Amino acid sequence: MQVDTDRFLADLKRLREFGAFKTGVHRPTYSPVDMEARHWFLSRLREEGLEAEMDGIGNILGRSPKPGPHLLSGSHLESQNEAGWLDGALGCVAALHLAASGLPVDVAVFADEEGHYGSFIGSRSFTGLLEETEIDRLANKYHDKPLRDALREAGLEGRPRLRAEPGRYRGFLEMHIEQGRQLEKRDLGIGVVTGIVAIWQWRIVIEGQQNHAGTTTMDERRDAGMAAVRLLAAIDSEFPRHCAERTVWTAGRIALSPGAPSIIPGRAEILFQYRDVDIDVLRRLEEVLRRCVTESNRRERTVATLEALSLSTPAVSDPAFQDALEAAAEALAPGKSLRMPSGAGHDAQYLARVMPAAMLFVPSINGISHHWTEDTKDEDLALGMRVLAEGARRILAA
Amino acid sequence: MQVDTDRFLADLKRLREFGAFKTGVHRPTYSPVDMEARHWFLSRLREEGLEAEMDGIGNILGRSPKPGPHLLSGSHLESQNEAGWLDGALGCVAALHLAASGLPVDVAVFADEEGHYGSFIGSRSFTGLLEETEIDRLANKYHDKPLRDALREAGLEGRPRLRAEPGRYRGFLEMHIEQGRQLEKRDLGIGVVTGIVAIWQWRIVIEGQQNHAGTTTMDERRDAGMAAVRLLAAIDSEFPRHCAERTVWTAGRIALSPGAPSIIPGRAEILFQYRDVDIDVLRRLEEVLRRCVTESNRRERTVATLEALSLSTPAVSDPAFQDALEAAAEALAPGKSLRMPSGAGHDAQYLARVMPAAMLFVPSINGISHHWTEDTKDEDLALGMRVLAEGARRILAA
Repeated sequence: MQVDTDRFLADLKRLREFGAFKTGVHRPTYSPVDMEARHWFLSRLREEGLEAEMDGIGNILGRSPKPGPHLLSGSHLESQNEAGWLDGALGCVAALHLAASGLPVDVAVFADEEGHYGSFIGSRSFTGLLEETEIDRLANKYHDKPLRDALREAGLEGRPRLRAEPGRYRGFLEMHIEQGRQLEKRDLGIGVVTGIVAIWQWRIVIEGQQNHAGTTTMDERRDAGMAAVRLLAAIDSEFPRHCAERTVWTAGRIALSPGAPSIIPGRAEILFQYRDVDIDVLRRLEEVLRRCVTESNRRERTVATLEALSLSTPAVSDPAFQDALEAAAEALAPGKSLRMPSGAGHDAQYLARVMPAAMLFVPSINGISHHWTEDTKDEDLALGMRVLAEGARRILAA
Repeated sequence: MQVDTDRFLADLKRLREFGAFKTGVHRPTYSPVDMEARHWFLSRLREEGLEAEMDGIGNILGRSPKPGPHLLSGSHLESQNEAGWLDGALGCVAALHLAASGLPVDVAVFADEEGHYGSFIGSRSFTGLLEETEIDRLANKYHDKPLRDALREAGLEGRPRLRAEPGRYRGFLEMHIEQGRQLEKRDLGIGVVTGIVAIWQWRIVIEGQQNHAGTTTMDERRDAGMAAVRLLAAIDSEFPRHCAERTVWTAGRIALSPGAPSIIPGRAEILFQYRDVDIDVLRRLEEVLRRCVTESNRRERTVATLEALSLSTPAVSDPAFQDALEAAAEALAPGKSLRMPSGAGHDAQYLARVMPAAMLFVPSINGISHHWTEDTKDEDLALGMRVLAEGARRILAA
């Protein structure tokens, strides 16, 4: 088993040319340039001796001719809009070179992990968690094109959807950039992912009374905007007392209606989310959130309501896989690895529902991701590739 | 001098049909339906024997053929978005019926009092306080259309702008709904306006760092959205300790960029205003506001900047005009009037800079305005019309 990290880096940089944007890429799911990249990747899989095909949702599977037991590895090829060159591409090319190194590894490319059309439709399709009726319903969240139209234009209409073959795999491995600064800050090279956080996404709607900003005295007001401000300030002061070490919470959107300078807002809508790997922490924070909303309704003359938009489940990495990856890191770069949760969602969280799964992180320069300036040093990419291969070898040998 | 309040109410209700929205109206400045309303009003002025024209900013002036001395009266025809049917329309139709009653009254309609494009550009143009260079600069605050484009599409491009003819007017009268609950709470019918509050309107921009909401730890964040929330909460807790009895403050808009659920906002923009009749109070609150912004920049890892959008001057109503209106109210509805400040800005505040001016208020049901549920009882509208006409007669006879 020998990984050629030069060819690995060369393939990564060739892939970077598809939809190149500044120093990053722009490869929206099923766009012409995204499909070009998929077809190029198919040809590379075949060059490496894999039996490869693309299915009805745009997933690619390259099957190893080697006898089992097998590992499955991969990620996604499309990008966020005007985003980074590594993200999902790294995990796909790394999987290709696991197979190229001679290991019995099948390579998977999961469509639309970036959610241009839905939520992890590629990995959910491969693991049997995506219904045809959902495909009928979905449309592009930026320009509203129905998913069915996009699949037809991409030439995928009517193709069967591939499923994970029961019993074929020991498990799944995904290599990815950290998208944070924990490794870089500590001058480390390898992150062994302990689990993938769940995202609990909420909508908070506050109903007040729209009124004239000059003629309505302060004590007559039912200002939905200021009620939203006081509620968010309360949440932000309460959460630190109940969260875990790596919990994060974000109010990504605050919309006041009608949003005019001289009108007291009659309605406020907040998108609020928090993330953690521990289901108990997520549940505890839900109680805190509900208490803050109840307190707001007791104190204010507005009515706040809380709606759960999505409550995902944390995915725990397989302990034996974590040990194998850590041992591989110790063998190749002693003292350079750290066990850490993934704050972002990944296809691995769905694969983890049907087989043992684990992820390996490499450092992100300045922690930047989902932006065209996203980058990682070549030597970090190469080390990650070698550690992934050594980890895979140990898992298969176990 | 005889006012026909039935025809007055009929004209008001005809005007209500232009841009009807639920029980209110939606007539944004220079929109097709707003221009229809302006042309209908022009024709009504001519039917009443006035020499009427519309100028290059959308102002309408109907000149009375009667010998002087003259009074000027009017208001505005456009509405806030999805707002009430009376607001400016009432003052325009009341002025029309002052002239129709035989009084030597010129009727004025001032464009964009509601500020879709600027700040009182109609009354400022009429009083010589609007430069061409400002017209070049202005754009619609909801959809960014340049004012010049809107004027061209409305067929107003190239027309001269009308100015108040020096020496022609004794003064200006404007009838309006109270937009508050002071009259209704006391079961009164007429408000004699003592003065108009100044509005100090600010834009607060907060610059942070856009980043991934899952992978960026709380202590690494430079969240412009949460910085905005904490700043507004601080302002709202400081202002009550420095304001006057009738001071009001409002954050009408909070916009976070990019505004996505899983992205930490890199930028926040707040529209914040306060109003008072006392210039010293306005100056004191500016100091408080600046202190809060300075404190935010000391405490947060974001950068907040404060920009004054408009700092208007309080306007005092002419004492003799107030006396005449109050005497008229006493004659027609004894004990039913109250002297009160206007918490809202009105075109009268600019007219007051070039001639004596005063305003008359009628009750607003539940104090609601700038909302489609805005309303006033027919008998209150009719009484207001009769008191306005009697007050005008007394002023002209003085």
